[in-house]
Amino acid sequence: MSDCPYCANSTHQVIWNDGVTRVMYIVDAPFVGWCRVIWHAHALELTDLNEAERERLMRTVYAVETGLRKLLLPVKINLASMGTAMPHVHWHIIPRFADDTHFPDPVWSTAKRTASGRSVPADFAAAMKAHLETSLA
Amino acid sequence: MSDCPYCANSTHQVIWNDGVTRVMYIVDAPFVGWCRVIWHAHALELTDLNEAERERLMRTVYAVETGLRKLLLPVKINLASMGTAMPHVHWHIIPRFADDTHFPDPVWSTAKRTASGRSVPADFAAAMKAHLETSLA
Repeated sequence: MSDCPYCANSTHQVIWNDGVTRVMYIVDAPFVGWCRVIWHAHALELTDLNEAERERLMRTVYAVETGLRKLLLPVKINLASMGTAMPHVHWHIIPRFADDTHFPDPVWSTAKRTASGRSVPADFAAAMKAHLETSLA
Repeated sequence: MSDCPYCANSTHQVIWNDGVTRVMYIVDAPFVGWCRVIWHAHALELTDLNEAERERLMRTVYAVETGLRKLLLPVKINLASMGTAMPHVHWHIIPRFADDTHFPDPVWSTAKRTASGRSVPADFAAAMKAHLETSLA
């Protein structure tokens, strides 16, 4: 769809793109390490994909989760596929830390504290890219 | 774990229980039709389950999504596995409507309007239970 930003074949921040799923690292997110997995074709709900497609999408989501756990050692991973504002199937994979602004509340709620200044290692995007290449090869 | 409420074999509001996954319908949720799928064993992250276990869990999640779409005709489904406050793998499956208090924002953000008074059909829990029995048989 021409008016859907997730249909655009963005190269910005994309760290994995196999033509079916894309993984974006949201560099400027208020929660460090936030990644997004986008199903390339325009679909509304997960259950609009067939079983093989869902498995392929979730395999990418799990690979991102595994990479975030290995590279950033978060206390918890949050996964969400909402799309209420942007109805094109995509997943948020968000590593959570006890010192993040909202912990243990959802990232969409009201902040409980000021930012800790935590950042990801300088090689995070490259390391995640290498992890995905190995995991999804 | 004895101190984890999701480990408890609750019978309250449970509309599906195969001993591995449970589906709860959250009758008093501020968003009508909110369901929760719980992996019965105590696990922290989705990637702590093996592939077959993840597929089994997601099969239940998809069945709930399909049931909510069929029975309530929501504008969108929201899926979230967070567990930051309750670190035991579980999914929220939340039907969203244009007149809900937060649409199109996440349910965990600040309300945009007062409740519309929308409710589910009187036979919703029974219909969802029947749907799950057929889908997951």
